[in-house]
Amino acid sequence: MEALSDGVFAIAITLLVLELAVPVGAEEDMLGAVLAQWPSYLAYIVSFASIGAAWVAHTAITEYLDRVDGNFLRLNLLVLLVVSFLPFPTRLLGESLENESAVRVAATLYGVTLMATAALVAALWRYAVGAGLVRADSSDEDVRVLTERLTPGLVGYVVIIGVGVFWPVVAVLGYLVIALFVLVPVRLRR
Amino acid sequence: MEALSDGVFAIAITLLVLELAVPVGAEEDMLGAVLAQWPSYLAYIVSFASIGAAWVAHTAITEYLDRVDGNFLRLNLLVLLVVSFLPFPTRLLGESLENESAVRVAATLYGVTLMATAALVAALWRYAVGAGLVRADSSDEDVRVLTERLTPGLVGYVVIIGVGVFWPVVAVLGYLVIALFVLVPVRLRR
Amino acid sequence: MEALSDGVFAIAITLLVLELAVPVGAEEDMLGAVLAQWPSYLAYIVSFASIGAAWVAHTAITEYLDRVDGNFLRLNLLVLLVVSFLPFPTRLLGESLENESAVRVAATLYGVTLMATAALVAALWRYAVGAGLVRADSSDEDVRVLTERLTPGLVGYVVIIGVGVFWPVVAVLGYLVIALFVLVPVRLRR
Amino acid sequence: MEALSDGVFAIAITLLVLELAVPVGAEEDMLGAVLAQWPSYLAYIVSFASIGAAWVAHTAITEYLDRVDGNFLRLNLLVLLVVSFLPFPTRLLGESLENESAVRVAATLYGVTLMATAALVAALWRYAVGAGLVRADSSDEDVRVLTERLTPGLVGYVVIIGVGVFWPVVAVLGYLVIALFVLVPVRLRR
Repeated sequence: MEALSDGVFAIAITLLVLELAVPVGAEEDMLGAVLAQWPSYLAYIVSFASIGAAWVAHTAITEYLDRVDGNFLRLNLLVLLVVSFLPFPTRLLGESLENESAVRVAATLYGVTLMATAALVAALWRYAVGAGLVRADSSDEDVRVLTERLTPGLVGYVVIIGVGVFWPVVAVLGYLVIALFVLVPVRLRR
Repeated sequence: MEALSDGVFAIAITLLVLELAVPVGAEEDMLGAVLAQWPSYLAYIVSFASIGAAWVAHTAITEYLDRVDGNFLRLNLLVLLVVSFLPFPTRLLGESLENESAVRVAATLYGVTLMATAALVAALWRYAVGAGLVRADSSDEDVRVLTERLTPGLVGYVVIIGVGVFWPVVAVLGYLVIALFVLVPVRLRR
Repeated sequence: MEALSDGVFAIAITLLVLELAVPVGAEEDMLGAVLAQWPSYLAYIVSFASIGAAWVAHTAITEYLDRVDGNFLRLNLLVLLVVSFLPFPTRLLGESLENESAVRVAATLYGVTLMATAALVAALWRYAVGAGLVRADSSDEDVRVLTERLTPGLVGYVVIIGVGVFWPVVAVLGYLVIALFVLVPVRLRR
Repeated sequence: MEALSDGVFAIAITLLVLELAVPVGAEEDMLGAVLAQWPSYLAYIVSFASIGAAWVAHTAITEYLDRVDGNFLRLNLLVLLVVSFLPFPTRLLGESLENESAVRVAATLYGVTLMATAALVAALWRYAVGAGLVRADSSDEDVRVLTERLTPGLVGYVVIIGVGVFWPVVAVLGYLVIALFVLVPVRLRR
């Protein structure tokens, strides 16, 4: 299971670059054309950080596991489904960030995908704790900290999806902040 | 062999997202354009579930193996061939699901690919049992259960391919049911 | 080194499917359009078998190794360079197989890439033997057999590249025969 | 962490081939059209060698590590960000190498990406040494050699980016020399 999961995370994070197209008008004014594509770069970085954050959370979870069961495997496949779907809303977002009405739809779809990722990762952990899949030598403190770490992101996404209907660029920067919030204080077991 | 197999499953399942194109007309009406692409999302989810089911079945098989031989490796390469081919009929299906005559051809090709995957995975397991590659400590009961699990899917595909000539959308939903049928009661050794 | 090598083989073999495009004219006559693309499917299968054969040979080599040195790593990177390049001539071949003058160029480039792969894999093995990287407990017989296995393909490629200038389709089928020749009698150490 | 890193390196190096398009005019004059694409092949080889060099340096670093901490993981994600970004400037470079004004921008972006990769890999190593993450049994000599090996490339990139403003092709060849400089004397621990 870890081999497939790590593979999907690594591939999804690397496929993001394929969404960056050679800019239109590159022959006459390469510099201007490359700079005009800033929404695509922003979407690229936010998605990279978000998949990175989901991967860090996923790794933290699997390190606490003693064993897995069928339900865990199925939930895990759902996590991989949304993670590997992310390059699509990323592309939509990058190509529509300067079109006022299109970007609202794209930012909402993007935010919903990120929120679904966070919700499923949190559900994966809560299921593992509830079903007794966690190692017996894990301290209650550790379990509590990881549970807390995985929840606020979820609330944040709900708020920011609403913000994104009015100010999509602010929302995209908000998604970056959430990803960094997960990435910055990471602490792995080992 | 496991490294290559897991890699191919992970890559094929993640490449599916590349088949989702930015919808035509996205600049004027992003929401309508995104929603009009529902056949592509359906094909995406069914293919994701089908590759996931094939991977679960493949993992169950390799966990029972004591060793592999040359014929097993060759059969395994054939499994990987059809699995890594699946993104192509997925794209055909997603782009033709609203064109009545084209979708019949696409749904049939799609179903034949899924059936070939299931048939080769079942053949892989039967070969492994017949050639004595299975661990000596595997109970007859376990071997019988896995054999039974891998067979009905095969019959189901034959039926649904026939249905797909008349009602392609019903067939696609049927392929989803078969994939979930394999995924839901999964039980791994360990 | 094995992680990178296995990854590149798995990715290259799975990326081949991206070279299969939705056929032109699919909206009016899907069946005819899909069938008219037979050169692309042929190129897909031959490339899949060729990368599979190179991977089997590469795996056989690494299983005999006791350790690696810097030169081995560099030679290995060259092997990965030609393997990961193969999807490009595969696409050229698939798109030109019905254009008499273009296909000669494409078939030659394709054959040269396959020959370079086989030559570099054979060189990798000979270097490993010469530099004493092979396990001390490998029998001379085993080493001799593997050396013999890796050489004839090389000669075959030279002959078939020449044939391909006059009969490109015959050459492509010849490349398939060579790949199967390597795949069929494979025997791994373990 | 190693699984994700190796995966990203393997995928980024293999995705490079997708940047090679079927040349325009291939139907009339395949040989001329394929040869006219030489800038894309050059960019492909230089990027392949550069990712290969970054991977060799990264592997050398992880082999000296005793453990990792949160900051190391975050720095490592930044390394993966620039490595997986490289296919984009590679494509820009390959498509603009015969357009005098566009190629200056593309060569500068390409060089800055390569320099950022080298700088982050060097920073990763210096951080690991400073934070005491290196194995206790590593000799000071080994640590010093690896530190020296990772630094000159950095200086080289700064010089060559400047050269590239006037002679872009010379700069691209210079980047190849730096990559080979890292690849040629590689020595792994084990």
